[in-house]
Amino acid sequence: MYKVDLNSDLGESFGTYKLGMDAEILAFVSSANVACAYHAGDPLVMEETVGRAARAGVAVGAHPGFPDLMGFGRRNMVCTPKEVKAYVKYQLGALYAFTKAQGVAMQHCKPHGALYNMAAKDMALATAIAEAIAEVDSNIILLGLANSLMIQAGRHAGLKVASEVFADRAYQADGSLVPRSQPGAVIHDTEEAIARTIRMVKEGKVTAISGEEVPLSADSICVHGDNPSALAFVKSIRARLEAEGVSIVPISEIV
Amino acid sequence: MYKVDLNSDLGESFGTYKLGMDAEILAFVSSANVACAYHAGDPLVMEETVGRAARAGVAVGAHPGFPDLMGFGRRNMVCTPKEVKAYVKYQLGALYAFTKAQGVAMQHCKPHGALYNMAAKDMALATAIAEAIAEVDSNIILLGLANSLMIQAGRHAGLKVASEVFADRAYQADGSLVPRSQPGAVIHDTEEAIARTIRMVKEGKVTAISGEEVPLSADSICVHGDNPSALAFVKSIRARLEAEGVSIVPISEIV
Amino acid sequence: MYKVDLNSDLGESFGTYKLGMDAEILAFVSSANVACAYHAGDPLVMEETVGRAARAGVAVGAHPGFPDLMGFGRRNMVCTPKEVKAYVKYQLGALYAFTKAQGVAMQHCKPHGALYNMAAKDMALATAIAEAIAEVDSNIILLGLANSLMIQAGRHAGLKVASEVFADRAYQADGSLVPRSQPGAVIHDTEEAIARTIRMVKEGKVTAISGEEVPLSADSICVHGDNPSALAFVKSIRARLEAEGVSIVPISEIV
Amino acid sequence: MYKVDLNSDLGESFGTYKLGMDAEILAFVSSANVACAYHAGDPLVMEETVGRAARAGVAVGAHPGFPDLMGFGRRNMVCTPKEVKAYVKYQLGALYAFTKAQGVAMQHCKPHGALYNMAAKDMALATAIAEAIAEVDSNIILLGLANSLMIQAGRHAGLKVASEVFADRAYQADGSLVPRSQPGAVIHDTEEAIARTIRMVKEGKVTAISGEEVPLSADSICVHGDNPSALAFVKSIRARLEAEGVSIVPISEIV
Repeated sequence: MYKVDLNSDLGESFGTYKLGMDAEILAFVSSANVACAYHAGDPLVMEETVGRAARAGVAVGAHPGFPDLMGFGRRNMVCTPKEVKAYVKYQLGALYAFTKAQGVAMQHCKPHGALYNMAAKDMALATAIAEAIAEVDSNIILLGLANSLMIQAGRHAGLKVASEVFADRAYQADGSLVPRSQPGAVIHDTEEAIARTIRMVKEGKVTAISGEEVPLSADSICVHGDNPSALAFVKSIRARLEAEGVSIVPISEIV
Repeated sequence: MYKVDLNSDLGESFGTYKLGMDAEILAFVSSANVACAYHAGDPLVMEETVGRAARAGVAVGAHPGFPDLMGFGRRNMVCTPKEVKAYVKYQLGALYAFTKAQGVAMQHCKPHGALYNMAAKDMALATAIAEAIAEVDSNIILLGLANSLMIQAGRHAGLKVASEVFADRAYQADGSLVPRSQPGAVIHDTEEAIARTIRMVKEGKVTAISGEEVPLSADSICVHGDNPSALAFVKSIRARLEAEGVSIVPISEIV
Repeated sequence: MYKVDLNSDLGESFGTYKLGMDAEILAFVSSANVACAYHAGDPLVMEETVGRAARAGVAVGAHPGFPDLMGFGRRNMVCTPKEVKAYVKYQLGALYAFTKAQGVAMQHCKPHGALYNMAAKDMALATAIAEAIAEVDSNIILLGLANSLMIQAGRHAGLKVASEVFADRAYQADGSLVPRSQPGAVIHDTEEAIARTIRMVKEGKVTAISGEEVPLSADSICVHGDNPSALAFVKSIRARLEAEGVSIVPISEIV
Repeated sequence: MYKVDLNSDLGESFGTYKLGMDAEILAFVSSANVACAYHAGDPLVMEETVGRAARAGVAVGAHPGFPDLMGFGRRNMVCTPKEVKAYVKYQLGALYAFTKAQGVAMQHCKPHGALYNMAAKDMALATAIAEAIAEVDSNIILLGLANSLMIQAGRHAGLKVASEVFADRAYQADGSLVPRSQPGAVIHDTEEAIARTIRMVKEGKVTAISGEEVPLSADSICVHGDNPSALAFVKSIRARLEAEGVSIVPISEIV
């Protein structure tokens, strides 16, 4: 029996600013990464998002980022591992209050944006994140880039880890993503993206941009709900995965 | 056997900015109100402050404030009760991560500055705060102004409550503080302040500025550690209380 | 020859968050109030907005607000006049850099949201705002609520002042707006709103909710571009004003 | 006749947080770099600092930094040149309001912390900063690291530029600073630091850590006033420079 998680970033609205089609995408994903008011989100949005996810039966996780609201957490910041560790704890705890108040479990933690990208390649940052999670609650699953240092750091810290893959991104022979700055980084053909994803889930393999077969653990697929065409893609990929006998379940039922 | 708590605001440094004599005052107080990075503090400071308090055997509580770092949380902001409730949950949770990581209990929650003053007189805000605490963890004690609506709201929400008194402030006949804008609001004579405090603790009474005897529950005394003379006052009042047979204990041993 | 200004709040996007139909509404207004990154906006948005307004031939003004991005500057904050004065200067200056860089004049300054509402009724705040403008550049016109203390304070500070009226709001006999909390505060009938506006512009009068005729200077009408129906209203009112022989011109051509 | 400027970072207090001995150091420097509320400072502090500098006869400049108050602008952030350009304009303009209100000229602009260090080696960032200044007011002098790309970019943008040197830092043969991570980066001997500085000013040369003689333009010396020993150093170096016949004058009298 094949199974995979579909995760999406939610709760990215802030104050009067609305972002994302949260209500719509919740019908199609199994895990929600909830922004914790550093790069996006605010306490009211967090509360509402946790409630919405709970009512939709979608598992909740924290989505901590850099303290850079103006840059949406997408800009690299050179923080020390000690700073990153404290920032992750802070954000995890803040979201924890809302999950606890609503009787929802905190399933996972997935770093956001620049923090995710930096930690994938920097063992000190990856370790800082993993230790932050482990010290707050070692039952929280670390959701990180497949084959990255985040996965290693999570294991070292004694956490359960879940490997995230991207349907629309090309991979290099070493299992890392082809940087967006390079040609071929993004798979624009929907059918090809879906076919590759199904193979990652069922065979644990992806064909690298250079032709090699790369082994890849595909516990969770990152999907987006920020516009109608993204949403349409999520519906398609979910339907196709289910048609292929793949159950969509939260990562706590996988790892 | 008489007993009372001495509480102080800690962890108010921010980034490169240092504030307060935290290391020094921890030797004299029994409960620390730790800023949660809305009006003061940051994640590194929170982590360090929780650790320091733990090593000093001082009980830790959250000190949530308005999102107004530039105004240090001392400026009234007209937030809705729903907003206040979410802000308190967020800050409580954020501090919770650090207490959990260090194996320390979250003893209490005391609103800060303008939030404290507004909630003392506004039942909707007081209720928002009390419910926020109760929904996150109903074992957390609400520390609020003696005789204020915060105490009532805490009881309605099913929380244990602790009444805070001020050694150096005059009281009105209804049990409220004389506003700082009025003459006589602050007791400048140290001996008088200490004598009043001892009487509040041992007899549960204070003489109002208008002469009446006012009943007052004195579970915790607010003291400050932001300058050497404040620190000297804390040493004096602690010594005098102990000399009078009053034990200084955290509020969890009182209420 | 009748003339009036149509003003709208622009540049309220922030980082990745988009707000308002700025490009569309610029075709219909004569003055743009540009957010200055306290309650909304950011430096990139300010730069883009000033450029857009310049290309559309729309006059530019500053739209300073309280330092409350999470509340969009709509929440009352109890700041001292000295604080407000410094905040207004800061925001005025920040926008000034973008107008100067693009060779555009800074026509006016209109306080935003809670700051606007508070200053309309509080002479100390109104004076703080007026003096801030006068000290930075006394050629900047203060755009404030008709019949309010802002208009008085602007005159006292030696500024040119422009009186703003609202097409869709009811007025009280003293010339102030009926508070939104009261029945009848908002005129929902578009035709009625337009007719009232035309009368305010051409006759300088409005019928109060209690029936009295109230004299009112109508230099500028506040319109919104945050959704398609608001935009449609702006097109209608502009067309009707022009059909009535009223020219739509920036406030610098009026006061 | 030899002359040099002594510059210091001022106005770094924020809200209730005090930083620096601004009042004291103003007696010894000729130019003040005033923080603009991104990495430090706030509008009230800016207003007070401009006034203080004016009364002390010290020239005022802007000290723009990254939007990172928690990190005091000392952490590298990967912003685009377009973002940096807008951030510098914003901060320049904000300070401009206070200088204009107090009738003080804006003499110079010196980037702060990580922005300074990054721009010294990154032509795109250096150009962004230089163009921001030139577009706002081409009379403002760019104060940057001697021999760095900032100086080049300033010239390309048509600005007057001033080269900053450090009394207590070792230089490499290419004229750049020895990174703080390397041994010998900091000159701890006060006499040696002063002697090196005098030679930089009078001969335009410094001996590199590797022994070579390096030509260096020394228009301004960076000094600090954040603690009593830093202040004592400033007094010493000023006295020694004057004893050597070097006048201490603002950079506008040098470049």
